[in-house]
Amino acid sequence: MSGSRPATLSRAAIIAVGSEMLGTTRLDTNSLYLTEHLNRLGIDVVSKAVVGDDRPQCAHVVRSLAATVDLLVLCGGLGPTDDDITRDVVAEVFGRPQAEDPAIIEHLRARYKARGYSGEMPRNNLRQAMVPRGAKVLPNPHGSAPGLWLEVDSQVVILLPGPPRELKPMFAALVDERLRPRTEGAGVFRSVLKVTGTIESQMDQQLHPLYDLWSARTPPVAATILAALGQIELHLSVRHVSEPEARGLLAAATAEVVGVLGDDVFSTDGRSLEAVVGALLAERGLTIAAAESCTGGLFTSRLTDVPGSSQYVREAVVAYANDVKVRALGVPPDAIDRLGAVSETVAEAMADGVRTRSNADVGVGITGIAGPGGGSPEKPVGTVALAVSTRTERRVRLSRFHGEREQVKFQASQAGLDMVRRVLMGVSSSPATRPAGDPRGTAAT
Amino acid sequence: MSGSRPATLSRAAIIAVGSEMLGTTRLDTNSLYLTEHLNRLGIDVVSKAVVGDDRPQCAHVVRSLAATVDLLVLCGGLGPTDDDITRDVVAEVFGRPQAEDPAIIEHLRARYKARGYSGEMPRNNLRQAMVPRGAKVLPNPHGSAPGLWLEVDSQVVILLPGPPRELKPMFAALVDERLRPRTEGAGVFRSVLKVTGTIESQMDQQLHPLYDLWSARTPPVAATILAALGQIELHLSVRHVSEPEARGLLAAATAEVVGVLGDDVFSTDGRSLEAVVGALLAERGLTIAAAESCTGGLFTSRLTDVPGSSQYVREAVVAYANDVKVRALGVPPDAIDRLGAVSETVAEAMADGVRTRSNADVGVGITGIAGPGGGSPEKPVGTVALAVSTRTERRVRLSRFHGEREQVKFQASQAGLDMVRRVLMGVSSSPATRPAGDPRGTAAT
Repeated sequence: MSGSRPATLSRAAIIAVGSEMLGTTRLDTNSLYLTEHLNRLGIDVVSKAVVGDDRPQCAHVVRSLAATVDLLVLCGGLGPTDDDITRDVVAEVFGRPQAEDPAIIEHLRARYKARGYSGEMPRNNLRQAMVPRGAKVLPNPHGSAPGLWLEVDSQVVILLPGPPRELKPMFAALVDERLRPRTEGAGVFRSVLKVTGTIESQMDQQLHPLYDLWSARTPPVAATILAALGQIELHLSVRHVSEPEARGLLAAATAEVVGVLGDDVFSTDGRSLEAVVGALLAERGLTIAAAESCTGGLFTSRLTDVPGSSQYVREAVVAYANDVKVRALGVPPDAIDRLGAVSETVAEAMADGVRTRSNADVGVGITGIAGPGGGSPEKPVGTVALAVSTRTERRVRLSRFHGEREQVKFQASQAGLDMVRRVLMGVSSSPATRPAGDPRGTAAT
Repeated sequence: MSGSRPATLSRAAIIAVGSEMLGTTRLDTNSLYLTEHLNRLGIDVVSKAVVGDDRPQCAHVVRSLAATVDLLVLCGGLGPTDDDITRDVVAEVFGRPQAEDPAIIEHLRARYKARGYSGEMPRNNLRQAMVPRGAKVLPNPHGSAPGLWLEVDSQVVILLPGPPRELKPMFAALVDERLRPRTEGAGVFRSVLKVTGTIESQMDQQLHPLYDLWSARTPPVAATILAALGQIELHLSVRHVSEPEARGLLAAATAEVVGVLGDDVFSTDGRSLEAVVGALLAERGLTIAAAESCTGGLFTSRLTDVPGSSQYVREAVVAYANDVKVRALGVPPDAIDRLGAVSETVAEAMADGVRTRSNADVGVGITGIAGPGGGSPEKPVGTVALAVSTRTERRVRLSRFHGEREQVKFQASQAGLDMVRRVLMGVSSSPATRPAGDPRGTAAT
């Protein structure tokens, strides 16, 4: 090797090898671990791939991805059987003939004996002792197949065993330290903002001036919008040599987003909406009770997913049948007869009823049509009336959600949590919400 | 197009597009669904890939995989923003210039308006109306971005939206039927059995004689056991040219499993436990009410995930606070004082109380310690008392579940549903259950 500094690594691809990874039940979870650790070292993962025990296909994918990256990580396919093809494929693609490594054979024999087997070790185990010319062996204390580190000109190719309990310690103990001097030291750091009360395209437009600002900065802040059910996520990332400085840049960008989107941003630290609502209730020393119809208990189940929620969740009534709404919550029967069970008046009465009954500070009423049956032209499937009632205030809205039954349930629970959040923060409601008793018509979202 | 039969499709690659899929949190789960349905049609998936919002890299991977397969399925990257690149990349790689499709624009405008937004639709939405020359549009009733079906010589390229709730119905309604005439030969057919009341290693041992039997058949039936939270799944698969014959082989193997495992098998058609319980209630014309403490509404939320559940779900009370258990459910305060809120006596009183109060046929009581706080040496986190009460019978058990708060909640709801199932079927309980009032000590599972 010459005395010059080896080339810097910045772009990686991860390839999982094994036909079992192409089935209908397993996903390549190793790549999440590897991505996190590569990103921290400042190496981007630009592609991931899964291939089966198919030599030509595997060779094609390895050759093709190798043309686009300077670091290639292959996981799995290092075992003793014929369908473990990774070593052979790498040896072929990079033109490195293999030879048996006596130290590995010794390790395999010792391991075979230590496991209580007698007699000769089966010959196919020796496949694991084959090493492409120039590759460094990465010993595997947790399994039989060693890993391999191969340098080909300025590229690095790493072969790791597939089982996570072997791959992770090998990466942490042997790979991380070998990669570190080969990187420029700028890692990728991330933060996630969560938003309600808007839609993806509108939010994208509102944030466009910030994107321009961020991309002009040194280093730039990258942003991705992800629409999920009932919320939109904004993923920010920045590449920096210093983690504290990266965190500072992310905090500044986060503040800029909040400046534009205001109270629609409900989480800047990855917390869920139920955790945010729970924290607001706990901080203020308030209790909550819910009367749920179409959500069937989901609203309260989400609230009680948060550790410590017994501090503020008093009670919920799932009033699926109309007579339960009347008996348990004191909903006036004539309101149900006149306006239907899915109406703002009934939602308000449910919120008031459960709050009074349980002596809670905040009452929530949710009544709607989750589908697939029960819709009508005036109140189609997905129509949900939501109400929040406190000792001093009432808010109510009628919304229209799209999707299947479970999606309608989730969005209704999400909208209910968000209404509670806005009431607790004392902020105005999202455009689709109007104050209780507002004579104007109903906005649907 | 000539009159000759189009080329047969047998090898597929699946590409997920989107930088969020290259992060540290998300995995491409769409490919599991797609693989299952492609396999059924007799199409093998030979590679999967994930690429970010990086045009050259995406184009490279598309071009490279296209060289090895006759069917390419791309998921995601069809949205309205600049980083939605899939359409552009496919148009470029396959040399098909794009043009705006007026019907899509109309759909987008109608959707925008239906969601209650006023004014002009943001212009970036129009990106979703771009169609590569010769591509067929696959309408998307569940979202804004339509799918695309493109034929290039003998190859087929399919673009699907990324959200599973949009991708799956589009594949089922529009893609499957277009692929079917293009395939020949043996598809892989699967069935899934779901089991409670046993553990993985025990079930594996019980089924071993069947594995030997199945592997000797022509064609063989393959089996995989997968332990999930609160249940174990047995996946059976068979490759056959005829779907009816494959289904016959799977049905025979299923009957053999039921012969061995008996009533522990709760589902042989993929149905969830809540759907099975719901069907039993509906068939028998019975109603149900639940009193939930540690599950916080999850038991009833799962029951009400089943369409038509308003027929049999009357009511639930989430009695998180002890005074609610007393006031709303009639639990004797001295039982709480003497035995603790997490006790079989309290669970029974909750089940009786909610059943009586709501005049339901079946009452369920669940009280436990979901954690992370609240445990004690005698009743550690994960301890849950469950009771089912009918007009003629009562069953109760004390269980111990492992895992985090949400896992304890889920397992408790699962155990409650399974108890109801066994009561409704009139079968004996799993070994951990004993009749109410049984003087023997409590079995924990």
